[in-house]
Amino acid sequence: MTLIHSTGTLAAPVLPTSGALRPLGLDEVRIDGGFWGDRRDVNRRATLPHIAHWLEKEGWLPNFDLAAAGTLPRGRRGREFADSEVYKFLEAVAWQLGSGADDDLERLFIGTVARVAAAQEPDGYVNTHFGRRGQGARWSDLEWGHELYCLGHLFQAAVARARTAPDAADGLLQIATRAADLVCEVFGPDGRQQVCGHPEIEVGLAELGRATGDDRYRRQAALFVERRGHGTLRDIEWGRSYYQDDVPVRETRALHGHAVRANYLAAGAVDVAVDAADDGLLRALRHQWDATVARRTYITGGQGAHHQDEAFGADFELPSDRAYSETCAGIGSIMFSWRLLLATGETRYADLIERTLYNVVATSPSGAGTAFYYSNTLHQREAGQPADPDEASPRASASLRAPWFEVSCCPPNVARTLASLPGYLATTDDGGLQLHQYAPARIRTVLPDEEQVDLEIQTGYPNDGVVRVAVRRDAAREWTLTLRVPAWASGAVLRVVPEDGAEEVREAAPGRAAVRRRFRAGDVVELTLPMGPRVVRPDGRIDAVRGCVAVERGPEVLALESVDLPEALGGRSVDDVALRGVSAVERDGRVWVDLAARDEHADGWPYEESPDAAPSTPVSVPLVPYHAWAERGPSTMRIWLPLEREG
Amino acid sequence: MTLIHSTGTLAAPVLPTSGALRPLGLDEVRIDGGFWGDRRDVNRRATLPHIAHWLEKEGWLPNFDLAAAGTLPRGRRGREFADSEVYKFLEAVAWQLGSGADDDLERLFIGTVARVAAAQEPDGYVNTHFGRRGQGARWSDLEWGHELYCLGHLFQAAVARARTAPDAADGLLQIATRAADLVCEVFGPDGRQQVCGHPEIEVGLAELGRATGDDRYRRQAALFVERRGHGTLRDIEWGRSYYQDDVPVRETRALHGHAVRANYLAAGAVDVAVDAADDGLLRALRHQWDATVARRTYITGGQGAHHQDEAFGADFELPSDRAYSETCAGIGSIMFSWRLLLATGETRYADLIERTLYNVVATSPSGAGTAFYYSNTLHQREAGQPADPDEASPRASASLRAPWFEVSCCPPNVARTLASLPGYLATTDDGGLQLHQYAPARIRTVLPDEEQVDLEIQTGYPNDGVVRVAVRRDAAREWTLTLRVPAWASGAVLRVVPEDGAEEVREAAPGRAAVRRRFRAGDVVELTLPMGPRVVRPDGRIDAVRGCVAVERGPEVLALESVDLPEALGGRSVDDVALRGVSAVERDGRVWVDLAARDEHADGWPYEESPDAAPSTPVSVPLVPYHAWAERGPSTMRIWLPLEREG
Repeated sequence: MTLIHSTGTLAAPVLPTSGALRPLGLDEVRIDGGFWGDRRDVNRRATLPHIAHWLEKEGWLPNFDLAAAGTLPRGRRGREFADSEVYKFLEAVAWQLGSGADDDLERLFIGTVARVAAAQEPDGYVNTHFGRRGQGARWSDLEWGHELYCLGHLFQAAVARARTAPDAADGLLQIATRAADLVCEVFGPDGRQQVCGHPEIEVGLAELGRATGDDRYRRQAALFVERRGHGTLRDIEWGRSYYQDDVPVRETRALHGHAVRANYLAAGAVDVAVDAADDGLLRALRHQWDATVARRTYITGGQGAHHQDEAFGADFELPSDRAYSETCAGIGSIMFSWRLLLATGETRYADLIERTLYNVVATSPSGAGTAFYYSNTLHQREAGQPADPDEASPRASASLRAPWFEVSCCPPNVARTLASLPGYLATTDDGGLQLHQYAPARIRTVLPDEEQVDLEIQTGYPNDGVVRVAVRRDAAREWTLTLRVPAWASGAVLRVVPEDGAEEVREAAPGRAAVRRRFRAGDVVELTLPMGPRVVRPDGRIDAVRGCVAVERGPEVLALESVDLPEALGGRSVDDVALRGVSAVERDGRVWVDLAARDEHADGWPYEESPDAAPSTPVSVPLVPYHAWAERGPSTMRIWLPLEREG
Repeated sequence: MTLIHSTGTLAAPVLPTSGALRPLGLDEVRIDGGFWGDRRDVNRRATLPHIAHWLEKEGWLPNFDLAAAGTLPRGRRGREFADSEVYKFLEAVAWQLGSGADDDLERLFIGTVARVAAAQEPDGYVNTHFGRRGQGARWSDLEWGHELYCLGHLFQAAVARARTAPDAADGLLQIATRAADLVCEVFGPDGRQQVCGHPEIEVGLAELGRATGDDRYRRQAALFVERRGHGTLRDIEWGRSYYQDDVPVRETRALHGHAVRANYLAAGAVDVAVDAADDGLLRALRHQWDATVARRTYITGGQGAHHQDEAFGADFELPSDRAYSETCAGIGSIMFSWRLLLATGETRYADLIERTLYNVVATSPSGAGTAFYYSNTLHQREAGQPADPDEASPRASASLRAPWFEVSCCPPNVARTLASLPGYLATTDDGGLQLHQYAPARIRTVLPDEEQVDLEIQTGYPNDGVVRVAVRRDAAREWTLTLRVPAWASGAVLRVVPEDGAEEVREAAPGRAAVRRRFRAGDVVELTLPMGPRVVRPDGRIDAVRGCVAVERGPEVLALESVDLPEALGGRSVDDVALRGVSAVERDGRVWVDLAARDEHADGWPYEESPDAAPSTPVSVPLVPYHAWAERGPSTMRIWLPLEREG
């Protein structure tokens, strides 16, 4: 089923022209507290000002002032892609303002846009790193220059502003369209037959086209998608697969190369496929998603196994202790999955979004929202030292969160994701409304047939598995409320409690649970998801975690953290224990496992004919949600627990 | 037991002033065919000319001509350390000439030295990448410039020449001493208190001091060793541990950071410790070796798990599929181990040397000696494409060997190791002679008490486990012949067959087997090592290979290569099989294992509560020595074989 949407003014991050589902705007969905509400509050109160502070401190926003003053390249600071962090910050602030007015944020936004505007050149070009005397020429380093990448982020920011504040006079949309016009001229059908080393311009152009109704932008996005994979970029140490320039998008089997690049490209390609009704391209992308999820994705939803080139590796190359799992790759995966969910309506895309939100996006920021993981390892072998709160870290990988990075793509990416999160909770179609993610929320929208819907979602999810949907408005006619039952939720139960009438209770198998009726204010639909701990085993082809299991609870992956090991173990590490039996139990609000701790090893040549002694000291230890790890000081951690060897 | 040596003119790579064992010169040991003799022939006939060709083709030797002509930096090619490849090539040729005259090689050597000489500046400085107008200033980039590193290789080349051709008039030793004098002046006690980002100058200076008798060089080496670890080098993305500048050498627990840097530094530190009788430093280094071998070394002897920073990781962080195991790190490990063997006489150092020679050094070059592995993975998941034989590879990691690399440290490093290999077979002490490595060879030397020794080693090792030592000269008095019994060789047997007298047979436990007698020409000592396949298990703390075993035979680690999978498996990969039972058998001269091949998987989310189906189709498959893999075209490969899961 493909619907044609006419959703031009909706305040949603992604507005395809067609698809199975229609997104909702941020003005239609309000998250009220709970797991994500709390994080969105932290994002607004702490993270956005934190980012603003660092953009000034590191000189990335002042770079625009230097550009306007004509003094560049002298004094320019930051890497070649530093402009993009300013744009992602603008996007985050725009979405945040779409959830409610905030005078300070509004002033910050307008002031920042003015500084960007002053740096734009008469022909629309804007980039602080190229094009001036003493800098590289425009478009002279497509492999590493990130010029189009930066513009893609500018376009996304402009779309966010145009959709959340269509009457605003700050001019960000004009900055974006002038730059986009230049891109279409320079890289159009008769222009440079080239692509950017880092995809992003594709999603940016596609959405800008949707927001403005200018079809040239969509066509230019399509050109960039089709051009990639033909080796116009230089071969490098990691091969052209690094920037997906080795194989055309249509012929790609699974996401490969740099994991952020791969996901951003795939997301843009879905936009192109959907708007052009290009079923062949969409089919290819869906197959890529399938192969990537089956063979190249961590249990956390994290993607990208390689530190060296921040890339996917081969199938099943998924080391825990060398997991890279960049925060931005997780966000890119959500971008890709969300677009496929809208296109197809299939719940598995929402399943992966949920997994990635709880176990990658929620893991990156500290509770205070002012320190971040860039990469999200699944196994920390050494406890390490806290990062300096006043210094940008030169390291993407560290045992503890850092306030900022020399390459700081992740913090503003988390911020824009949390700021736009209400847009990912629910959708509508001609038949009704679909709930994809569960959070305490209020949803007020209008179905395509003019039916007005007002729902209140009450839930303690994910601590609690009960999701209560209370209808707050009488319906004029029948419509269908659909709730996603996550793939892990075998044994879920759906209860329908009409305001007047008999309660109905039924099992809800993983997939969708639908209730069709003429709803009345006071009706309640209640989904109860089984929240007991689950012990899961890995595919036998993943060498890195053979003989291990992991424990999950609801959408959360759990982890063993060394601070929770009992003192009796005398400082032994999370790597000195094994799981006694395949089970985990809930007690006092925590999940516990029984472990056996290995007695001290005599070190020697580690590969011998006689097997290791089995671990011996039994202990019971609580697990923590992975996203909450390393909040209690330096620690070691592992998600995958080896099973005690029999005999 | 520490002997004071007076071995100034011996043609050996390493000549400590004291130690438990005294090395032999290349003029005292001749390898006659067999595993290593064949490889040395290929090295001489094919690899050395191949390297000479590429040094010209890539411009790395012509850089010296440009320097002499005063036209640099215009036209300079290669990375900042390209000079060092010329020096390693010179060292390789010098050692090769030490095993026998060769007019072509001699001319090549002299011609190359002349080109280097012409580039040396009046004050002794020589480097084609620094110090001229348009280049960085001398010593201005100690983190990455590799100036002292290059000089260390120059010094090792000069020592090789001085010891194998003391009367040669090419002047390489003078080039080296003039440069070394400059280093002592610039970096001496009152000079720059700095170190090079890549250790190597330490071993170079120490050996140059031994070869020339100039104690300033040794003292300068000691200064460099002591200065390191105090953070004089800049912090970088990978931390100062990358170049071992985070912790002083004496306080280091295990080798860490960049694996080649770490081993080169440790080797130089042993030189310093031994020559200064610094027992504390030597003890620290021995502990580092122990911890590194127990926790940070692959079954192949390979070291360095990280691709990103070519570094050791944390303890037990030893992924097979992302093993880096750089060839040069293996060679560095041999340098370190050899120095500890000479210092202490303990056989475990020779054990690791043997393992690393057979499974890293022998793995790097192709059979033809004209293509090389830079990194030596233990698990190849995708078969990949052959390298272009006419292009330097931009990649350190690839599934097949490449003729040359943009960073081509490994090929000349292999060449100098094979060229000097006779020097690593045997040593003497006051009591007699020790055999450490087994190859068909002739050894003629003089014991410290003037006793002349002439031995012929006859063996088909490692195909065959019998090592026959035939005495070719009557002794004037008793001396002790000691044979290393490798740690893996439980059940070895020693047979002594006197020319006239009763045969004696006894078990020889791993460690040493010694025969003391007044030998007579015709006496035979025969060690029989058990060559049946051995199935070994990993330490339970190595996550990457949990639930797997590996098969070894003698000193060789074996591997499963996809070209050996039977056609009946219909193209299934080495990753689709499991081992049925912990055993391997020898048949028709090969080692076979029984495998079960997994039926086709349905792909889906790979982490589920229900376990995988067990593999099902049984097949019997031969293994190959790891060093011989990828000689039959593109292939996948694994050393560690998962055990079939019961039930």
